[in-house]
Amino acid sequence: MNYKVVLSLLGKTLLIEAVLMMFPMLVGVIYQENNFISFLVPILCLIAIGAPLTFLKAKDTSLYAKEGFVIVALSWIFLSLVGAVPFVIGGVIPNYIDAVFETVSGFTTTGASILTSQQIESMPKALMFWRLFTHWIGGMGILVFVLAIMPANNAGVMHVFRTESPGPSVGKLASKLRFTARILYGIYITLTLVQVVFLLCGKMPLLDSFLMSFSTAGTGGFGIRSDSAMSYSSYVQIVLAIFMFIFSINFNAFYLILIGSVAKAFAIEEVRAFIVIILVATVTITINLLVSASEIYSTFGEALKHSFFQVASIGSTTGLTSANFDAWPEFSRAVLMILTIVGSCGGSTGGGIKVARLVILCKSSTSDFKRLIHPRAVVTTKFEGEVLDKNTERNVRTYFILWAIIVVLSTLILSLDPKSNLFSNFSATLACIGNVGPGFDKVGPMFSYAFYSAPSKILLSFVMLIGRLEIFPMLILFIPRTWKKG
Amino acid sequence: MNYKVVLSLLGKTLLIEAVLMMFPMLVGVIYQENNFISFLVPILCLIAIGAPLTFLKAKDTSLYAKEGFVIVALSWIFLSLVGAVPFVIGGVIPNYIDAVFETVSGFTTTGASILTSQQIESMPKALMFWRLFTHWIGGMGILVFVLAIMPANNAGVMHVFRTESPGPSVGKLASKLRFTARILYGIYITLTLVQVVFLLCGKMPLLDSFLMSFSTAGTGGFGIRSDSAMSYSSYVQIVLAIFMFIFSINFNAFYLILIGSVAKAFAIEEVRAFIVIILVATVTITINLLVSASEIYSTFGEALKHSFFQVASIGSTTGLTSANFDAWPEFSRAVLMILTIVGSCGGSTGGGIKVARLVILCKSSTSDFKRLIHPRAVVTTKFEGEVLDKNTERNVRTYFILWAIIVVLSTLILSLDPKSNLFSNFSATLACIGNVGPGFDKVGPMFSYAFYSAPSKILLSFVMLIGRLEIFPMLILFIPRTWKKG
Repeated sequence: MNYKVVLSLLGKTLLIEAVLMMFPMLVGVIYQENNFISFLVPILCLIAIGAPLTFLKAKDTSLYAKEGFVIVALSWIFLSLVGAVPFVIGGVIPNYIDAVFETVSGFTTTGASILTSQQIESMPKALMFWRLFTHWIGGMGILVFVLAIMPANNAGVMHVFRTESPGPSVGKLASKLRFTARILYGIYITLTLVQVVFLLCGKMPLLDSFLMSFSTAGTGGFGIRSDSAMSYSSYVQIVLAIFMFIFSINFNAFYLILIGSVAKAFAIEEVRAFIVIILVATVTITINLLVSASEIYSTFGEALKHSFFQVASIGSTTGLTSANFDAWPEFSRAVLMILTIVGSCGGSTGGGIKVARLVILCKSSTSDFKRLIHPRAVVTTKFEGEVLDKNTERNVRTYFILWAIIVVLSTLILSLDPKSNLFSNFSATLACIGNVGPGFDKVGPMFSYAFYSAPSKILLSFVMLIGRLEIFPMLILFIPRTWKKG
Repeated sequence: MNYKVVLSLLGKTLLIEAVLMMFPMLVGVIYQENNFISFLVPILCLIAIGAPLTFLKAKDTSLYAKEGFVIVALSWIFLSLVGAVPFVIGGVIPNYIDAVFETVSGFTTTGASILTSQQIESMPKALMFWRLFTHWIGGMGILVFVLAIMPANNAGVMHVFRTESPGPSVGKLASKLRFTARILYGIYITLTLVQVVFLLCGKMPLLDSFLMSFSTAGTGGFGIRSDSAMSYSSYVQIVLAIFMFIFSINFNAFYLILIGSVAKAFAIEEVRAFIVIILVATVTITINLLVSASEIYSTFGEALKHSFFQVASIGSTTGLTSANFDAWPEFSRAVLMILTIVGSCGGSTGGGIKVARLVILCKSSTSDFKRLIHPRAVVTTKFEGEVLDKNTERNVRTYFILWAIIVVLSTLILSLDPKSNLFSNFSATLACIGNVGPGFDKVGPMFSYAFYSAPSKILLSFVMLIGRLEIFPMLILFIPRTWKKG
């Protein structure tokens, strides 16, 4: 482990967080909330720790996969540990572990909350800004941001980039890494601003428009109202649903549209598969809602709106809710649970296993099945128009197996929590590793994660980080060999 | 598809079933139940259909994987379709789909039942014999039996053998296939008889002793009492638990013990892993039961007994119950649910994903993770003392992925059933694909599968067959190309 490289990059990340924390402090000043001290303390800490670290000069500046993983994992952990401080000092979330849970949930764009309705509604604007801002920061990845603004003198940073950007297919955008990072941020900022404009047209106040756009852009899911998005107008709900959908599409598609290759954008296999998934889910849930005995929605329009909103929200792993979907018929619940597992496109801000991985899993298994039946036949698996690379296929399978093992273990350990139940624990694990937020039963849209014990909250924070950083970086921290010097 | 070979072997299987049905008919005659007609009709049908098929002579008698799969799949489907007839004629299960469900559950050694307490307790002995006998027949696989007694002139029958015998590791016992099949049946019959003796010592009536031994030996799980094994004496419960455990161990181990290599038997990695799993599960559940707030069992002995019984029952995928484990604390339920997924050793009569496969999955994923971190390191994966063959590894992974896809799809489709709920559907799917039987919530130990609609029962029957025949043979039936002549 090359400690100097790791620590130096960690220092830079902490400094960036200090800068980012000035935004909510400014909001507090503007709204005269007298809570700038809540931010000033952590900002000074970040500078005090971060600045000296950046002066560390490593002789050997090469970054290997191992260092890349460790940097990403440590950065996200420290960002969250310090990011939680304003909530504690501000008195909004007095318990530090609760505050860390909320902040991890923010940065990982999960949106699982431990706040009660009353806590949400009485929260000062500055702290609410910080809470939602973490979604926006976490959506694209803070290290990508570091890479985008700093001179990259090292090809190894690719590891960092690959790890932090969600999904297996980032990095094809342009050959130069920093250029890619800047394009991604450009698309991200532009789309966020467009959404702000759309929300303003729906008569949403300016600050609220920004906050809800942060929540949507990062596919996070924290709301500023205690009922998430249930009490917004239909117009606002539809705008939110459409933007949740947009931010869960592979950003490669937007880049292709930007350079004029619209046809190519829609030719991306993952994007097509994702659109089909969203369409099929929306239609089947709408039908299920209309024909179900309980008659939840009287009109086709209502059923379609809520169906699309929930499908876009869960499919994008955002987790905003326009209705209590946990009270929907079982089939609709099952579809939403599957969407929690699947998640969004790689190269988007969304979470989940990712559509690309699932397409690869299905295709390669089908090919294997064919080979088994016709041992002499030549069977090739194609993805995105090319024969699937054996290594990619292998990595995706490993990813899925580790994912399944973690889901089972997390569910098991959570079941030690006396207030929990098995189904809720399974659902909470899926909602956290998929960075979705709300789940079913005790973690359903009408409830929060507050009832979990402190150890369970710590476990779920890890699960959220495991999901956001795509498993490997978090696991590497637990391998003793990682920490050997050299 | 070589239809003549397939149909000829199918004919032989049907004839065997005709012979096997004479046993319950005899029981009916002995107990003067006047229900021999219930068996005579299907027996005559089996002879009428089976006999002409056996006369089909194929020019090309070579069996490829495809034919092997199709023979196995079709045999099991037809065995069940005809095997259900006695229940209908006998008036015990008037609805044919219900009868098929019960028979598939019997042959696949699942033990999921649609019978009410009253139906079980009023069932004539002949029909009860047939119900339990299906477990014993299905445990070892009827086609293996065909191979054991008929002259095998074809190396291709290995495909049949491999497919029907549970688990990935059969076939190493001895080089000659028929010899192997006979050894397996020898071990199977001997152990069954030993259990009968033990049960007789516990003052269980002779017929009951045979029936419960059938249920245990096949790791089936049908009971002859409506409360499964709850009202038996502690002695009988412990005998049942120990034999459930024994029948879920890889039969290779017994063969090795038989030829005097006891040390080698306990050196089998899968067997060791399985023993560790059973031990850890038993201990953790015992502790969980004792420390839980609800104080279900007052003494350590009681808690240990019920814990071991349930762990052996679910771990062996039998499904007999000594207690209502669905009312146990959440952690205990979670452990049992994981055992439902894991299942028993390959080469046993048990179901589940199989311990060998899980060990391979975990090891190969760990190796891949190491390779990712240290790209230049040489990482090898060993299993059972040898470097893991790439093909085996690949097949196991494909198996797991297909398993997961089937579990998700089955849960989804079952959720269309208006009387069901999501968690029960997930649990029912796991219990059926793992050939366990009882699950949680609506399919818990105190309930039956009766509430499911006819389409759901048909789906679950398929899922049981998919589990018992290890996925591929059932899937191949749905591929149009399978049915092309040639």
